[in-house]
Amino acid sequence: MNKNKGASSRPALLYGVHPVVETLRAERRRIREIIIARSRDNRIDIEGMPVPTGIPITYASTDELTSLTGSPHHQGIAARTEPFLYADVTEIVDRARELSLMVLLLDGIQDPGNLGSILRSAECLGVAGVVLPKDRAVPITPAVEKASAGATAHVPVARVVNLVRTVEMLKKEGFWVYCADARGSREWNSVDLTGTIALVLGSEGKGLRRLVRERCDDSIGIPMNGRIESLSVSQTAAILLAEAMRQRNASSTHLSE
Amino acid sequence: MNKNKGASSRPALLYGVHPVVETLRAERRRIREIIIARSRDNRIDIEGMPVPTGIPITYASTDELTSLTGSPHHQGIAARTEPFLYADVTEIVDRARELSLMVLLLDGIQDPGNLGSILRSAECLGVAGVVLPKDRAVPITPAVEKASAGATAHVPVARVVNLVRTVEMLKKEGFWVYCADARGSREWNSVDLTGTIALVLGSEGKGLRRLVRERCDDSIGIPMNGRIESLSVSQTAAILLAEAMRQRNASSTHLSE
Repeated sequence: MNKNKGASSRPALLYGVHPVVETLRAERRRIREIIIARSRDNRIDIEGMPVPTGIPITYASTDELTSLTGSPHHQGIAARTEPFLYADVTEIVDRARELSLMVLLLDGIQDPGNLGSILRSAECLGVAGVVLPKDRAVPITPAVEKASAGATAHVPVARVVNLVRTVEMLKKEGFWVYCADARGSREWNSVDLTGTIALVLGSEGKGLRRLVRERCDDSIGIPMNGRIESLSVSQTAAILLAEAMRQRNASSTHLSE
Repeated sequence: MNKNKGASSRPALLYGVHPVVETLRAERRRIREIIIARSRDNRIDIEGMPVPTGIPITYASTDELTSLTGSPHHQGIAARTEPFLYADVTEIVDRARELSLMVLLLDGIQDPGNLGSILRSAECLGVAGVVLPKDRAVPITPAVEKASAGATAHVPVARVVNLVRTVEMLKKEGFWVYCADARGSREWNSVDLTGTIALVLGSEGKGLRRLVRERCDDSIGIPMNGRIESLSVSQTAAILLAEAMRQRNASSTHLSE
C-alpha cells in the first residue's frame, strides 16, 4: 500500500484493546507510543500479543486516558500511531479481482458507530475494500477504529471526491454495481452476489442520493415483516455481506441446497 | 397484554422521533406529556403522526431537553410515559405458535445500543418476542428504546429470573432451542430456522454462559473469512433473523432456489 498517498495529515491516538492489538498485528502502521492504564496491572502483553521492543510504553491513570482519548471506552489502552493509511481505489479493484470479493461503497455514513460496525462486517464476512466519499461522511477516526473492533487495521478503505464517478469507473472495469434500498427492486437472496460486483449503501437518514442510485445497475431490497420503518444501514450491510459469503462458499464447494 | 405485571416501577422519559411516534402509533402505553424543542418550529405533527388530543404538549429549549433526557440524541422530542410494559414469556410462546415466529433469548447483553439494535432487527425481520434475564443485563431503558428506532413499542419483551429455566420450559413446550456461537457446530444456512424454534444469543464479551449453552439442543455458527475475532452480537442477530425470514418466505411460497 502506498504509505504517503491519501494519508490524513495528523497522527492518530487509537484507543481500545482491539484497535491497538490489530494495528500491532497488521504491522503496517507505525506505532510511536503505547499508553497503558496503571490499573491494567502492568499487563502489556495484551491478549497474547507481545508489544514489540522499540515501542515506548507509558503509564497513565484511567482518567488521564479518558481525557487524552476523549472517550471513556479506551479499555485502559491507547496508542499514538501515524495517521490512518487510506488505500487507492485501484488497489481495492485489483484485490476484488484477485480474491473474488466485492467492493463496498458507502454513500455518506455520518455516525462513527455505524461506519465502524460496517467495517467490522466487511472484514469478518469478506470484502475487497470499502470506498467512502470525502465530503459529508465520517472519515476513519479513532472512534470508528474502536467501533470496528480493529477491522480498520486490515480492510482497505479508500476516500474519493466523487462517488458517482467511482461507480462509473467500476462499471467500465466490468463490475456489476448494486445498490441496497428499502424498496429495492430485487430481493436480497435472489440476486447473484458472487463475481465482479460492487455494492452501494446509503446514509442512515437519507439513504442513497438519487444521482448515485441512478448510476447503479440494479437495486436490492430486504423486504420487512415489521411495523417500524427499516433496518439500520449496518444491519443491512451485515445481512447482505453474509448472503454474499454464503453464495461464494456454496459456489466454491459446488454445493447447492 | 397484562398492564401491571412485570412493569418496572418508574415512569419513563422516552426521547427521539421514532420511540415517541411508534409509542403513539402502538396505542398500548399511556403518554402523559410530550415535550418538544422550540427549534422544531412547532411541528407537532411528527412524521405524519398527529398527536392525539388530550396529551399535553410543552415546549423546551434543546439544551433543556438534553438535560432532561440525559442524552443529546433526543432529536427535539421527548415523551413522559408509563414504564415499559414487559410481556409474560407465556404470551411470547403463544405468539410464536400462532405466527410461526421464533423466540429470541438474550443471555446478558450489557450495551443499550446493542440491545436496541437487536430489538430493531427482531421487529423488522419477525420474531415472536425477546426474553431477557433480570440480572446482569441491561433492561429496556430510554436509551435502548432510542437505539431500537421505536421497535420496543411493538415487539414483546419479557424478563425472567432464570434464563436456563426458560430454555428448559421452551424445550418441554416442544421448541427446538439453538444457540449461536462463533464456534457453533452447524453452519447458519444449513439449519432449519422455521417452525417452533428458539434462538439464544450470548453477551458481547463473554458469549453464552456454559450452563445456558449446555441446555440448548444445537449450536449455530457463522464461519468468518476475516482476521479479526468475530461479528458483534447485533450483527449475528441480524444475519440469523434474516436467514430465518428467508427460510419462512421460501417455505410459505413453496419456492426453492
